[in-house]
Amino acid sequence: MSVDQEVPALFREKISRRGYDAIAKCKHFVEEYCIPGDRIYLSQIREEKSERWKQTPEIVEKLKQKAKDAGLFNLFLSTHYKEGSGYTNLEYGLMAEYLGKSLIAPEVTNTNAPDTGNMELFARYGTPYQKKRWLGPLLRGEIRSAFLMTERGTSSSNALNIACSARKNDRGNYVINGLKWFASGAGDPRTAVWLVMCKTDDSASKPYRNHSVLVIDTKKALQSGRAKLVRPLSVFGYDDAPHGHFEISFDDYEVPSEDMENVLLTDEGKGFELIQSRLGPGRIHHCMRLIGVAEYALSRAAYRAKNRLIFGVPMFKRESFLTSYTQHKINIQKCRLLVLNAAYKIDISDPKSAREEIALAKIETPRTVVNVIDWAIQMFGAEGVSQDVELARSYAAARTLRIADGPDEAHLGQLARQYFKSENSTEFFKKLDQRITNLHKL
Amino acid sequence: MSVDQEVPALFREKISRRGYDAIAKCKHFVEEYCIPGDRIYLSQIREEKSERWKQTPEIVEKLKQKAKDAGLFNLFLSTHYKEGSGYTNLEYGLMAEYLGKSLIAPEVTNTNAPDTGNMELFARYGTPYQKKRWLGPLLRGEIRSAFLMTERGTSSSNALNIACSARKNDRGNYVINGLKWFASGAGDPRTAVWLVMCKTDDSASKPYRNHSVLVIDTKKALQSGRAKLVRPLSVFGYDDAPHGHFEISFDDYEVPSEDMENVLLTDEGKGFELIQSRLGPGRIHHCMRLIGVAEYALSRAAYRAKNRLIFGVPMFKRESFLTSYTQHKINIQKCRLLVLNAAYKIDISDPKSAREEIALAKIETPRTVVNVIDWAIQMFGAEGVSQDVELARSYAAARTLRIADGPDEAHLGQLARQYFKSENSTEFFKKLDQRITNLHKL
Amino acid sequence: MSVDQEVPALFREKISRRGYDAIAKCKHFVEEYCIPGDRIYLSQIREEKSERWKQTPEIVEKLKQKAKDAGLFNLFLSTHYKEGSGYTNLEYGLMAEYLGKSLIAPEVTNTNAPDTGNMELFARYGTPYQKKRWLGPLLRGEIRSAFLMTERGTSSSNALNIACSARKNDRGNYVINGLKWFASGAGDPRTAVWLVMCKTDDSASKPYRNHSVLVIDTKKALQSGRAKLVRPLSVFGYDDAPHGHFEISFDDYEVPSEDMENVLLTDEGKGFELIQSRLGPGRIHHCMRLIGVAEYALSRAAYRAKNRLIFGVPMFKRESFLTSYTQHKINIQKCRLLVLNAAYKIDISDPKSAREEIALAKIETPRTVVNVIDWAIQMFGAEGVSQDVELARSYAAARTLRIADGPDEAHLGQLARQYFKSENSTEFFKKLDQRITNLHKL
Amino acid sequence: MSVDQEVPALFREKISRRGYDAIAKCKHFVEEYCIPGDRIYLSQIREEKSERWKQTPEIVEKLKQKAKDAGLFNLFLSTHYKEGSGYTNLEYGLMAEYLGKSLIAPEVTNTNAPDTGNMELFARYGTPYQKKRWLGPLLRGEIRSAFLMTERGTSSSNALNIACSARKNDRGNYVINGLKWFASGAGDPRTAVWLVMCKTDDSASKPYRNHSVLVIDTKKALQSGRAKLVRPLSVFGYDDAPHGHFEISFDDYEVPSEDMENVLLTDEGKGFELIQSRLGPGRIHHCMRLIGVAEYALSRAAYRAKNRLIFGVPMFKRESFLTSYTQHKINIQKCRLLVLNAAYKIDISDPKSAREEIALAKIETPRTVVNVIDWAIQMFGAEGVSQDVELARSYAAARTLRIADGPDEAHLGQLARQYFKSENSTEFFKKLDQRITNLHKL
Repeated sequence: MSVDQEVPALFREKISRRGYDAIAKCKHFVEEYCIPGDRIYLSQIREEKSERWKQTPEIVEKLKQKAKDAGLFNLFLSTHYKEGSGYTNLEYGLMAEYLGKSLIAPEVTNTNAPDTGNMELFARYGTPYQKKRWLGPLLRGEIRSAFLMTERGTSSSNALNIACSARKNDRGNYVINGLKWFASGAGDPRTAVWLVMCKTDDSASKPYRNHSVLVIDTKKALQSGRAKLVRPLSVFGYDDAPHGHFEISFDDYEVPSEDMENVLLTDEGKGFELIQSRLGPGRIHHCMRLIGVAEYALSRAAYRAKNRLIFGVPMFKRESFLTSYTQHKINIQKCRLLVLNAAYKIDISDPKSAREEIALAKIETPRTVVNVIDWAIQMFGAEGVSQDVELARSYAAARTLRIADGPDEAHLGQLARQYFKSENSTEFFKKLDQRITNLHKL
Repeated sequence: MSVDQEVPALFREKISRRGYDAIAKCKHFVEEYCIPGDRIYLSQIREEKSERWKQTPEIVEKLKQKAKDAGLFNLFLSTHYKEGSGYTNLEYGLMAEYLGKSLIAPEVTNTNAPDTGNMELFARYGTPYQKKRWLGPLLRGEIRSAFLMTERGTSSSNALNIACSARKNDRGNYVINGLKWFASGAGDPRTAVWLVMCKTDDSASKPYRNHSVLVIDTKKALQSGRAKLVRPLSVFGYDDAPHGHFEISFDDYEVPSEDMENVLLTDEGKGFELIQSRLGPGRIHHCMRLIGVAEYALSRAAYRAKNRLIFGVPMFKRESFLTSYTQHKINIQKCRLLVLNAAYKIDISDPKSAREEIALAKIETPRTVVNVIDWAIQMFGAEGVSQDVELARSYAAARTLRIADGPDEAHLGQLARQYFKSENSTEFFKKLDQRITNLHKL
Repeated sequence: MSVDQEVPALFREKISRRGYDAIAKCKHFVEEYCIPGDRIYLSQIREEKSERWKQTPEIVEKLKQKAKDAGLFNLFLSTHYKEGSGYTNLEYGLMAEYLGKSLIAPEVTNTNAPDTGNMELFARYGTPYQKKRWLGPLLRGEIRSAFLMTERGTSSSNALNIACSARKNDRGNYVINGLKWFASGAGDPRTAVWLVMCKTDDSASKPYRNHSVLVIDTKKALQSGRAKLVRPLSVFGYDDAPHGHFEISFDDYEVPSEDMENVLLTDEGKGFELIQSRLGPGRIHHCMRLIGVAEYALSRAAYRAKNRLIFGVPMFKRESFLTSYTQHKINIQKCRLLVLNAAYKIDISDPKSAREEIALAKIETPRTVVNVIDWAIQMFGAEGVSQDVELARSYAAARTLRIADGPDEAHLGQLARQYFKSENSTEFFKKLDQRITNLHKL
Repeated sequence: MSVDQEVPALFREKISRRGYDAIAKCKHFVEEYCIPGDRIYLSQIREEKSERWKQTPEIVEKLKQKAKDAGLFNLFLSTHYKEGSGYTNLEYGLMAEYLGKSLIAPEVTNTNAPDTGNMELFARYGTPYQKKRWLGPLLRGEIRSAFLMTERGTSSSNALNIACSARKNDRGNYVINGLKWFASGAGDPRTAVWLVMCKTDDSASKPYRNHSVLVIDTKKALQSGRAKLVRPLSVFGYDDAPHGHFEISFDDYEVPSEDMENVLLTDEGKGFELIQSRLGPGRIHHCMRLIGVAEYALSRAAYRAKNRLIFGVPMFKRESFLTSYTQHKINIQKCRLLVLNAAYKIDISDPKSAREEIALAKIETPRTVVNVIDWAIQMFGAEGVSQDVELARSYAAARTLRIADGPDEAHLGQLARQYFKSENSTEFFKKLDQRITNLHKL
């Protein structure tokens, strides 16, 4: 089936010729290089504890070059950005579905979190220095970055809880104290810059202006000995080395004087605005990829079922297999429509206006996909939980997306408040009796 | 909120100005006349057994005239038909959502089943005589019709099972024998024509050419004494009088000679083709209306929750209410996208090409809506199952749509076969090892 | 399979020989007379509006006599009552499962709500006069009764909301004002006594002592013209005539002086205590019967599946049928264990001590059974919603039990409070660190 | 709450005083030593690849001694065995719930799989030599064992598929060839004996007599170089070192002549009988422990909820938390009743007669518990998937139990066949019409 035909009818005319070409190229690149590359990647990851955070599997840089050569780099930066690749969010959404099928495809095409969100922030809010120093190398895939937001012991669904402090000392330099964790990507030896959400003010009168995002040079911070990679956190037993998810401590870390001029991303007190802006597209990028994760899991299950006999009958001929498979296909299609509808809404407006559409996609997609993968695991039996098919790894990654960027429950609660603001049953039912009376007289 | 804003982003630009106007008029007409009219309609239904099948509540004809005057008549007949109202299926889909909120709106706007499907058949396959004799009065809302398909004791998901026979006697006239049931609308005193799916041939060699659709003059058939309305069937305790769902018997009913010339809808042996063609849009019409049914149920629940105290707190402030309400809104939105996607696919191709999209909508919408209504009932407590809020009536109607036109299970099974025809995991995984080898050499 | 073998292992030795005999007799009586009797009962119900509330289908009294003769009468009155039949709640629970398979079995064996709860109240709290006047005829099945509790417009899960007032006038007689609804059984022409929950006091200081239960002579009340059967309420389209569920109004109805001496069931202000006591066993009786309702629905579905071909294969051989059937069997077994566990707990203690066990059964059983019946309906297709198999009627009845005696949500909330009172994680986790330290030293 | 009160009412009188004491001791031992010990255990596991399979964390042997001293050793070996601890399966079931709360409790009390099943086999079928050589040290906790059953590439739910062959060479010694995987416990350096399911015969005429269980001395086999621990398999990223799940290859491994006399567990060709016998109690042991796993997860979630503020309100006061928590408690209670019902059935009969009861517990418990843990993870947010609360590790372990010893689907299918064998609807419904006729005449 050609890529054109795979695009749901509804979207076809909204995609440019250039968009179709890129989607088709993504598909080919993922199938030809990235999925095969996943196996090589995993075999190149060294297991020794001392080595896990000092490596970059060779296949990554090799394929990164291939992606650059093919023009498949930074696809996520939509037409909203001048540095962007010039694709719409809708177009990127269709590409991201393919990228989601491979573990390494996002990094290889420079579309992986948290770098994508960080690049968007730099592109939108960065000073010329920050753009040159950090955005450039990030866009070229030379360095990596981390976003230090979540803290241990507080609910990150309410950013007011962020307690990591950055206070100016008498030299006028920020001094950072606090403990961040689940800083994804912080384990990578190429990580050169951290964006750190800090409390720079305590004024009770303006709680939403108390936080700022600081741009921290990772190497300097670590060399100072006052910022530390405390430990990697595991996700269902995976440490995801060398990317990783780290606990990071700041113990009176003073930002060097020479960096103070460009230490703030936009103005002090704008932390909230920045993280709000950061989350929208990021959430939808995750969802786009998850559609691909789910389709790939189904594809694996289908292949298994075609080649596995259960009491003499191929598994794919069993009614229970067929109906579950089909129901999962339907469930994915429902999420796909939600995700692409949100992407399109961003395209014709902006992330803020698309808040409701993004929330729907964010709430539904991870849990749907988690169920798809869980079913695929079950179809594989014991092999399904093992390293041989890597479905369990997909499961773990998808499962965390029911938590990351706000748990399902928080989004549902927020959406409820939004819905009830515009709920107009009172208006209607209050008029009903009068209308019945009017009608009787007709 | 204006009608424009209620349309999901993805569909907005596909709707003409004239379409938007009609949608807005539908909304107003339903809210102002039809929903209030429902209460009057139910109060005008006479309860005496002897009267139930001899009445047309006055409010219906009154509002029918108003709908005609407002140009809100026969909206379902899409641009595919020259007799049509000139709206696309997508546009009609958005109108039908409003029509679905009222019990009587479909009849009042002449968009109710089974007349709609019958009109489509006459428009597409009818002889000039049939069009003049039946389609004209149907389009003007002067008569009603029934489609006699389902038979007792056989699975109607396989049309080959249809056993009601029509054989020519020595006068060359069809003689009909058999028992049909669940013939919806057959109770209405205005019903003037039956379309009857009959077996006109027994050849084992061409099973899909054994059936034909006969056009039967209802009054003549009943007067003959050889066709009988055996009994009304109830649906969860509702007989839906005067519309009704009837068991109808044919006991050597001979079609009068003068009707033989126009007794067949298109040629003998084309029964299958006709019912296939009939089902597609019908299924999606039901789904479109169900979206409205669900939204109206949620609206009722919301109003209830705003005006009901539970231990001193308004019910709508309870977290369990809020999250369930919101989840149901999301579930409806997912179905809405499926339904409109299918409507749009029909618009840009035809019902046959949109088969997969229609199946998805048909499988998901009724069961989603059934759950929404069930929840709304629960929010109303005992009142919810009673005649006072009519949610139980909606439930019964929606529940039957998991069965009518093929049960969920049959559609899921068919879809599975379709999916597996195009499933291409084998192609991909067979190449995978070679690709890994190639990549190693890169 | 003999009755002994059908009893779950855990309960077998707790059942007396006399109990086993009664269970076996119940089984036989239900299969031989009651289930066949259901068809006759429904055919004897007259449909004319004017007749529906004036009849007692002949089959009922005929089988009632047979039940009495067989010693299968008042089985529900457990060993806790001296008027009882001498069976434990556990034994009755196993009988009630059989009784639940038939529509008329409960009435025929004098074990039907609301008479059972009313008889329990009279037996426990009644004056000698009340026992003679009302309990005697009720136990003999000569008269019937209703319990007037629920009111329109207030949440009955909080009895404090009951507003129907009974105030003494200057003659010292209660005068009742208010509107009750969903008074089940109030339509029966044999109903001779109402128990009415009324507010007899307004003291804010003791809200749980403001209500009383009045014993009202139905005939006198209706003849006065100041108490009225306003209208029957329907349940999913069923009015359940002649039993019925009625709206009843009191408009300054003065209790006759001669009845005042025995008008109160126990003392004034004890209404709460009475309804608390009434609900426990009643809830569990409903659940016991529901197990039978579900098993009968499965049995119907199984028979259907054995006799129905789907594309040439008997439906019962389809994997989807088999696994759903089996899963429903499992789900019923889980509820059966909950229900019997609660019955046994009542036997060895009392309804109050068994509150948690009763709540579990009450929360889980109705919704499980509703799903079982819904599936059985789906297996029957259109026939399933019709009067021919009466599954839809079962569905409606079972569905209301998710609302009656408090909605699921209320019970779940109450249980949560109970659980959290005894939740002891704090105690454990506070000690954990110290214990780890101790252990290190070991 | 004392242990007595925690036992469901139903079971109380079935438990001996000695049983109660042991349950109470288990509870205390697990809370005081094992749960604290889990943290120490995990901190003592060395991470270096080369070390992972060569260690026994010190805490294990230390607590093992304590368990022996307290008489909490080999509790699983029920009254069916003379070597047993003299508790019933029901009593052990209540103990195992506590043991399930800790990662190390089963090993520490010598009740962990696969040793338990292996010990049961030796006790029941072993030669005196085998009992002395292997069962003795196993019962004393001096050595460990593995059961080599599952093979790569075949469905283990059908034991006929087992292909690993053991054929006698001309010296009359078995020579083993084949590949086993997911041999749990095979990583432990103390593992001294393998039970290996092999095909010893190919006769098509008696397929259920083709297999035998061989008792293999692990050290000799590995030293020969012809049996190899190929690699550890991971379960959701956990390798569960040093216990582990291994792929093991046999490449012409010849059983030494001196071991041939005792190499077979019971006779040749009895492999099926042995594995059937092995699975029953093993399945139920897993389920018993899972109840404890689930309760502990809920306990963790409750403690979290009591100490976590969400927008200023303790999480445990949120309605969504409360109702989910309560529903999970209910779901666990349903499984507990299933599990204990099965245990009791074994006690009063034997594993074979309790097959249906065991199947119900085995189907329902793992998936219920998986959902409980998943919810607890969600309540913890990011921390929930990390090593800090180890819920993800519990999840992985519980998840595999939906696959191990036969996937849910296989058990459901088997149960369905069993149910349909005894399904008697035909008998009943065939008589129904006659009974109605009889009744009319009454």
